[in-house]
Amino acid sequence: MGAEEGKPRVLIPVYQGVDLLDVCGPAEMFFWGGLQVDLVAEVPGTIVTGSGVALQVSAGLPVPSTYDALWVPGAGSASLERIIGDPDRTYLDFLIAQAQMSTWVCSVCTGALLLAAAGLLDGYTATTHWSAIPDLLANYPKVTVGDGHPRFQEDRNRLTGGGISSGLDEALRLIEILSGTSAAQEAQRVSQYYPDPPVASLIPNVIVPSLG
Amino acid sequence: MGAEEGKPRVLIPVYQGVDLLDVCGPAEMFFWGGLQVDLVAEVPGTIVTGSGVALQVSAGLPVPSTYDALWVPGAGSASLERIIGDPDRTYLDFLIAQAQMSTWVCSVCTGALLLAAAGLLDGYTATTHWSAIPDLLANYPKVTVGDGHPRFQEDRNRLTGGGISSGLDEALRLIEILSGTSAAQEAQRVSQYYPDPPVASLIPNVIVPSLG
Repeated sequence: MGAEEGKPRVLIPVYQGVDLLDVCGPAEMFFWGGLQVDLVAEVPGTIVTGSGVALQVSAGLPVPSTYDALWVPGAGSASLERIIGDPDRTYLDFLIAQAQMSTWVCSVCTGALLLAAAGLLDGYTATTHWSAIPDLLANYPKVTVGDGHPRFQEDRNRLTGGGISSGLDEALRLIEILSGTSAAQEAQRVSQYYPDPPVASLIPNVIVPSLG
Repeated sequence: MGAEEGKPRVLIPVYQGVDLLDVCGPAEMFFWGGLQVDLVAEVPGTIVTGSGVALQVSAGLPVPSTYDALWVPGAGSASLERIIGDPDRTYLDFLIAQAQMSTWVCSVCTGALLLAAAGLLDGYTATTHWSAIPDLLANYPKVTVGDGHPRFQEDRNRLTGGGISSGLDEALRLIEILSGTSAAQEAQRVSQYYPDPPVASLIPNVIVPSLG
């Protein structure tokens, strides 16, 4: 993952309990789409993801610098609450500073709640995991929640994804934005991303708190 | 990832250069579908995947024991050639012994070439990454390659997937087989796996060697 001249660069800051596929689905797509991924951790070392699979991340949060995109993955509520409640604001303040240096500011799944807690979605329309939409509505009134459950939502330079696997579609969109449609098609082709789930189901109607 | 009573158990043996999403897409789905994943490595430690993201895997290849499924991920040709050409046959002999103790024997992507090299697809119909179909046809004449590019192919207790992202669909199918449709639907729902790629492309016509 060393710097390669000319490749668009995406920074993914992870943390304990991060959702595995929020990181690895997009990282795989970015790789095949010709983007450089820099994976860094709030505290470097072994990062145990929510599903128990462990990532080894040797780099810590860097001094904020120019990136084509900042990509914030989500997690379950315990991990989010720890970050949002951290009195040192290590991760949130990093997001704020790094967002200033990033052409695109992206999240997938409940990563949107981290961007929102950092104030980075104020005045923007965003989406998140279907189950987290009530939280986004209730606790971040300056954020507009997009209709329905899109795979991703674009608003100016904010790109926010729905839950977990939405990151695959959203990553293709970011590749398309940064490197063009043919690069996104190449990532789709190499990863054989012509999905066809063998089961069907519906997203539950989540209880949306009144905005009145 | 400790043993939990009553959960179906899936063993995923990884190796240097393994494809990231072949492991992490299914692992995520299995987690939400209530399956226990045991991730083990040909040589335990830091496993650098093909895309550069590193996994930390503390367990080595175990003494073969009863599993509901053995799940073999794929990789690029250099990693496959090393395993297939290994004079000690460490990984291939493990697959042969573990397959005997596994109710289901599965691969995703070019993991099918590893199963084939171990002789575990002889007499079965299988699929693999679209680009690896000529290799499977040319070098493993006892394997029947399924028509087209299905997300996965089932033949008795063999379940083989297409390229990389096919593992998500295939994992849902394995959850359905082992735990029922509602468990697979739950994994789909929690992972919000209602895919909708923002670009479209075609799988190239690969050159298929004559079988005459």
